[in-house]
Amino acid sequence: MFELKMDNAKYWRDCVESIVSLIDEGSFNIAKDGISLKAMDPSGISMVSFFIPSKAFSKFEVEKPTSIGLNIENLGKVLSRARDDEVLVMKDADSKLLIEFIGKGVRRRYKLPLIDVRKNVEKEPNVQFDASVEVAGEPLKEIIKDANLISSYISFKAAKDNFTITAHGDSGELEEVHEPDGTVIKKLEAQKAADATFNLEYLENMVKSCPIGNSISMSLRTNEPIKLSYNIGDATITYYLAPYMES
Amino acid sequence: MFELKMDNAKYWRDCVESIVSLIDEGSFNIAKDGISLKAMDPSGISMVSFFIPSKAFSKFEVEKPTSIGLNIENLGKVLSRARDDEVLVMKDADSKLLIEFIGKGVRRRYKLPLIDVRKNVEKEPNVQFDASVEVAGEPLKEIIKDANLISSYISFKAAKDNFTITAHGDSGELEEVHEPDGTVIKKLEAQKAADATFNLEYLENMVKSCPIGNSISMSLRTNEPIKLSYNIGDATITYYLAPYMES
Amino acid sequence: MFELKMDNAKYWRDCVESIVSLIDEGSFNIAKDGISLKAMDPSGISMVSFFIPSKAFSKFEVEKPTSIGLNIENLGKVLSRARDDEVLVMKDADSKLLIEFIGKGVRRRYKLPLIDVRKNVEKEPNVQFDASVEVAGEPLKEIIKDANLISSYISFKAAKDNFTITAHGDSGELEEVHEPDGTVIKKLEAQKAADATFNLEYLENMVKSCPIGNSISMSLRTNEPIKLSYNIGDATITYYLAPYMES
Repeated sequence: MFELKMDNAKYWRDCVESIVSLIDEGSFNIAKDGISLKAMDPSGISMVSFFIPSKAFSKFEVEKPTSIGLNIENLGKVLSRARDDEVLVMKDADSKLLIEFIGKGVRRRYKLPLIDVRKNVEKEPNVQFDASVEVAGEPLKEIIKDANLISSYISFKAAKDNFTITAHGDSGELEEVHEPDGTVIKKLEAQKAADATFNLEYLENMVKSCPIGNSISMSLRTNEPIKLSYNIGDATITYYLAPYMES
Repeated sequence: MFELKMDNAKYWRDCVESIVSLIDEGSFNIAKDGISLKAMDPSGISMVSFFIPSKAFSKFEVEKPTSIGLNIENLGKVLSRARDDEVLVMKDADSKLLIEFIGKGVRRRYKLPLIDVRKNVEKEPNVQFDASVEVAGEPLKEIIKDANLISSYISFKAAKDNFTITAHGDSGELEEVHEPDGTVIKKLEAQKAADATFNLEYLENMVKSCPIGNSISMSLRTNEPIKLSYNIGDATITYYLAPYMES
Repeated sequence: MFELKMDNAKYWRDCVESIVSLIDEGSFNIAKDGISLKAMDPSGISMVSFFIPSKAFSKFEVEKPTSIGLNIENLGKVLSRARDDEVLVMKDADSKLLIEFIGKGVRRRYKLPLIDVRKNVEKEPNVQFDASVEVAGEPLKEIIKDANLISSYISFKAAKDNFTITAHGDSGELEEVHEPDGTVIKKLEAQKAADATFNLEYLENMVKSCPIGNSISMSLRTNEPIKLSYNIGDATITYYLAPYMES
């Protein structure tokens, strides 16, 4: 038994969009402190870890920790129907998730079936990162588009004084050198230079829900998974992506 | 012999778009009092009835009542080429419809061939409706999108105190309860509760030409066709749609 | 050895877009006075001739006249990545074209391979035109769309007092008469009436890079190629298109 209420239905929509950009199903764990979800994408090369504290809700009643498995894609579509000024209520009802949008003179209720989630994950990858870079969200989206012109992969290299992006393909080569000047690269810390290559499509899906004006934190270690995270209001979304090893 | 003139070509374009959203050919009947068109959609489950009074034209000369059969889709495309501040003239010429757009220093003339319309309809369905609902146009478009998430069908139920929408599908259920508070439901009158289910694609095409800010009137009777109509300036467009009987 | 610099990278992007709208590869000739390119489209029925004077660049160093063959489509894509306030540098490096975008704290470098261009053209068609028409760019784009409704071809007829467009197809006919009133037709000079028919798709591609507010000059002679040109800042783009002979 749980009943959650949020004064702005569109905020929960934004949260769920950050999850659905990578995975199609998952289990939300609803506990006293908030709601969390950890899931791998269908191909198993990336992972998403989401957390939103209970304080983000105007009402947060949970009898005991509960896990609800959902088709996240369907949940995202339902939430995309949120209108301005609508209040959101989520509760369990007859083994379904009831999602209620409450507006002036209107009560709209969707019921979504609960599902058994195939692949649950419990733990995040344990990597000792050597470098961390904080990049403004919009420029990072553009950097990914730059590389997309040339290749399906992008290499990130964090060094002491700069953050370098490279991409190679049949139609040409790209090299971008970004200095930590505060407009694009907000912060750069590299105990050791770190260099790895990643799939661009996954990265694109990971950054696309970053709210306008927010920064994205990236942690790197040579040829190890990247960790990428940002805030959506009180919520935090964290992604991991395995490196691509050129053969 | 007829010659019709309208000072704003884009208004006639809007009128024709409301017809072409449902049917692909039809006959305009041009008489002293105005122009009317009644036609069924190709599948025969819906009907459109259009009327525009002669006063909507700045010149309306008709020798005797005339019927002109047209490919309404082609007519709609030609009218979509109307520019701001252009005057529209329509007249018959050599068994064709001449459409003239007159702008500053420019005269653009399209000639469209007349066709024999396969399926003419003379009368509108005779239903004794039990309930009528007046809904603001934009919210009704949103309601139809809500249901589209879940199903290809939507059920409308008009009762004394509220207007309820339901939809069911594999991915979930939707129930919307709208009270007559004046923002979405402008007026609700039900002598008897009325409940019927309709195809969403047809409804979507019917409501899409409703001008922003206008209301849509719906008349319902249990398991009978719905009547849906709205104004486009001086013109009135009325649609009928047969109910879907779940088996 | 050359090094060219432009203070606004997006201006060079606009120039290249006018070329890539018609051809996919070509050779830029870089000489003291500026950069030129002449190329035929793959089908051989149209030609593009581009010139930009050296004064359009803030730095223009060329040791000796140089020709660089490029996949213009790839070049266009790279230039589409230009950001606001970025400076553009182009130079040769290891038999490649190095394109550098320089922003605040950022240096982005693309390298594009040089290619052997299959079909080089040296000279522009030698036609003694009988009429010239100067048309505002946006209205000409609309005229081409008008004709597109009806046909894949458009006929232009320049006479002493007006400029007439016609198109014929199964779904109808179009005739537009434009008088030289200064809003659409800026100037009209016909020593002799000139009348020819052209492929609409080619014309559409030719006019689409015309900057908003600019005029397009067309030169006509009966059943001869059309010459169409406009300015993009200091640069001039000129297109030729062979007439379509109805059989």
